[in-house]
Amino acid sequence: MHRPYNFSAGPAAIPEEVLRQAAAEMLDWHGSGMGVMEMSHRGREFISIYEQAEADLRELLAVPPQFKILFMQGGGLAENAIVPLNLSRGGALDFVVTGGWSQKSQQEARKYASVRIAASGEASGFTTLPDPATWQLDPQAAYVHACTNETIHGVEFQRLPDLKALGSDAPLVIDFSSHVASRPVDWSRVGLAFAGAQKNLGPAGLTLVVVREDLLGHALPACPSAFDYKTVADNQSMYNTPPTYAIYIAGLVFQWLKRQTDGALAGIAAMEARNIAKAKLLYGFIDGSQLYVNKVAPDCRSRMNVPFFLRDESRNDAFLAGAKARGLLQLKGHKSVGGMRASIYNALPLAGVQALVDYMREFEQHHA
Amino acid sequence: MHRPYNFSAGPAAIPEEVLRQAAAEMLDWHGSGMGVMEMSHRGREFISIYEQAEADLRELLAVPPQFKILFMQGGGLAENAIVPLNLSRGGALDFVVTGGWSQKSQQEARKYASVRIAASGEASGFTTLPDPATWQLDPQAAYVHACTNETIHGVEFQRLPDLKALGSDAPLVIDFSSHVASRPVDWSRVGLAFAGAQKNLGPAGLTLVVVREDLLGHALPACPSAFDYKTVADNQSMYNTPPTYAIYIAGLVFQWLKRQTDGALAGIAAMEARNIAKAKLLYGFIDGSQLYVNKVAPDCRSRMNVPFFLRDESRNDAFLAGAKARGLLQLKGHKSVGGMRASIYNALPLAGVQALVDYMREFEQHHA
Repeated sequence: MHRPYNFSAGPAAIPEEVLRQAAAEMLDWHGSGMGVMEMSHRGREFISIYEQAEADLRELLAVPPQFKILFMQGGGLAENAIVPLNLSRGGALDFVVTGGWSQKSQQEARKYASVRIAASGEASGFTTLPDPATWQLDPQAAYVHACTNETIHGVEFQRLPDLKALGSDAPLVIDFSSHVASRPVDWSRVGLAFAGAQKNLGPAGLTLVVVREDLLGHALPACPSAFDYKTVADNQSMYNTPPTYAIYIAGLVFQWLKRQTDGALAGIAAMEARNIAKAKLLYGFIDGSQLYVNKVAPDCRSRMNVPFFLRDESRNDAFLAGAKARGLLQLKGHKSVGGMRASIYNALPLAGVQALVDYMREFEQHHA
Repeated sequence: MHRPYNFSAGPAAIPEEVLRQAAAEMLDWHGSGMGVMEMSHRGREFISIYEQAEADLRELLAVPPQFKILFMQGGGLAENAIVPLNLSRGGALDFVVTGGWSQKSQQEARKYASVRIAASGEASGFTTLPDPATWQLDPQAAYVHACTNETIHGVEFQRLPDLKALGSDAPLVIDFSSHVASRPVDWSRVGLAFAGAQKNLGPAGLTLVVVREDLLGHALPACPSAFDYKTVADNQSMYNTPPTYAIYIAGLVFQWLKRQTDGALAGIAAMEARNIAKAKLLYGFIDGSQLYVNKVAPDCRSRMNVPFFLRDESRNDAFLAGAKARGLLQLKGHKSVGGMRASIYNALPLAGVQALVDYMREFEQHHA
């Protein structure tokens, strides 16, 4: 008897093994007599949890030594302000707008800097990604911002743009909230990456920031100390009390990720292989069906967030009710686009996608 | 067999009943097929958790309807910036400095406004609180800031100052992080109150803000949207994804608080009676001993945080080792003051204070 499959876009499914371990350790972590929630963040017990989590994440994502790993708070929406507060130096910024999230990011950044839209997918209804060769980059920009997986519109960069090859020396800032740890990252192309944890890493309330050291130390005077990357880095993410329990859960997810294998692959490479297989199964079924449609250009489709529509939208409620009855949860699309959305993050197994496809097929046949 | 008693200053002890319920519900909340960590914050399951938590807190603390309750992130240190970003209007601010926390608050506020020290306990080494009658209040101040319980120095306001009676119309801002929910609040004297949750409310990573509605809507242009109280209030604390699991745990703590009784008293009144008894027992023992000393003036002593010193500091390590062996955890004092500190928040029962006093007596006799 398996648990229901949870297709939430975030907060999202957590691996069952992680939840079981957290429940077992809730009152007493490793014989300490305390639950993790009850530990001083300055005590050696929590410090060991923190250091292990950071080391595991660095290993999993192959983060080079010249990058700092910061555990912060406020999620992606807070980072939309925190990034320009730290990196803009009050100058010009280039934004690539590819959906709802980068749209919000560029809007918030206008509080702190002069924002240019270097490229936009809006004309296509965000069903395609603008080719980097067409981006209008400002040679003076303090950074270039891109959201490398758009949770709402379901588009994903299959490779990171090489800004240097495009003639820009600006650091690339990526919002990788909704596909972090689902595939490797080419850090040679990145200056800063941020992610809310609640999609692929752990509980809401934890934000991951990976930032190249040379970008630290230039925060605007208005930047709150608790969100000044240099202050955070200099204090090992403990300038203010960190979200200790969320870090602990993320650490358990990292250990779970390290245990994953797929043939000869392990860790993130194994996850990527699995995520490719999951996406192929779901998009393949949708494209072959008469009832369901995904409007995103095939080479821009997200492996993580699969929005789709019923060609007959009067059946939406029946579709969702039937899904829930089968233990297929949280499939309703984002209110701004409607329809359905299956978020198939790391913790959602291939069997869950297969169960969804089986249900979709049956629903289509039954309602034909 | 009871669990060890945990005297951590924060993150701190959580009621055992709360931890047991959280562990039991970890994989499946109320038959939903999801753990709380896995729920969309927009779904009806989490909305019901959120609304219950807010309603319970409003009832427990008797928060009047003209105050908004906000669940935020970043803790007290982030609020040190967020409060002036929202309330200063770039004008003058009055700070009452009574220990380490208000000291940090006034420092951070200088980024956003002109700060005056209206009163300070520094001359006494923060062992007394300056009498409100002596405060030098600026009639033009946008607000007056006080930390009503200083976690490090162990001083606590036994009643809130009445600014109106002191001739000031400025709203009072209180940092009540380390005694929230330990006693009633006189909201007629308060404009805004904030608290990191990790002492008396729940896990680290959740910040409570209670703010009078008329103070909303005046944020400085540099205020990040995610920390603009009006934006947060207008979106029921869901402009950015809230720390859902921390809110759930805090909600369980609120329900635990509502179940508490002490004679005819219930809820916060019952907790206050218990906290008075706990503080009386511990301070009474310290004052009657030859080995231990607490330097705070009796009428300024905190019921929550009891710093104390061994007159012979060479015995500190032996004291801590013996305490740990008895299941009395996290008694080491803050690095900035040294010595010992017993934080005796709501979740630490009278029996825990009795066990500490028994140990302290035995240690004193044994080392006499």
